[in-house]
Amino acid sequence: MKNRRRKRKSYTIVVGCGRLGANLANTLSDIGENVVVIDKNSGAFRKLSPSFGGITVTGDASEMAVLNNAEIGKATAVISVTNSDNTNIMVAQLAKEMFNIKQVIARLYDPERECVYREFGIETICPAVLSMKEIDKLLTTIDLGALETEGETV
Amino acid sequence: MKNRRRKRKSYTIVVGCGRLGANLANTLSDIGENVVVIDKNSGAFRKLSPSFGGITVTGDASEMAVLNNAEIGKATAVISVTNSDNTNIMVAQLAKEMFNIKQVIARLYDPERECVYREFGIETICPAVLSMKEIDKLLTTIDLGALETEGETV
Repeated sequence: MKNRRRKRKSYTIVVGCGRLGANLANTLSDIGENVVVIDKNSGAFRKLSPSFGGITVTGDASEMAVLNNAEIGKATAVISVTNSDNTNIMVAQLAKEMFNIKQVIARLYDPERECVYREFGIETICPAVLSMKEIDKLLTTIDLGALETEGETV
Repeated sequence: MKNRRRKRKSYTIVVGCGRLGANLANTLSDIGENVVVIDKNSGAFRKLSPSFGGITVTGDASEMAVLNNAEIGKATAVISVTNSDNTNIMVAQLAKEMFNIKQVIARLYDPERECVYREFGIETICPAVLSMKEIDKLLTTIDLGALETEGETV
């Protein structure tokens, strides 16, 4: 993650401190951004690195009290990456519609309703779709190599 | 997934018929490739599309009998995307070392030992790493937009 020049530092809320959430929070913290991580299980914060300089909030991020506790009103971005699609959708919609957060990203394991959320200004990432694209890229690379060896033109 | 010109059709074995495996198998079948899907739970094959033209094999792909049943000797690629990193690693190593399969791809949720497998000629994809990259791209896009609005140069 590149450091980016801007007038004000961003204030990012990461919801879910699993492998992806913790990694994201560590990286944002490392480049000097303000970051708050929310997880309903305080044990999850063990995944944060010792140098993590952000704030942790224990609680269910689909509850308004928890979001207020994380000072969501100040957030420039909310990234919801819990293991539950429903939670990620609910948090994303609250962030977008109640708090008017500029950038909202939700992880969805099930990509089916992805386009609906895009209309609401919620960006989604789907691991299965990303993995498909990566595998396609890997297969294409090998094929091109094989074709070259056989002296064909592609 | 683009259709690719080549002398012989590929013969791909997909291990694990979850969301990613089924999608991959459907796509390969749609472009006319030979594809075999292995899953230890036959109910998983319901995820395959009605037009799926490949073969399904029920069984544990870390067992030699199951791999032989899928005619692994003929395979040009083996892609292991079960929900278990250990299974994916075991299948990938068998495919590479026992059957000398040209292209072997394994999904690993835990990216820690990724580099070790790369040395063995096993390509790995890690959903968390791919998601990190995608989120970084999304955040960067917004940042650049914000900077332009404020009349700054990047």
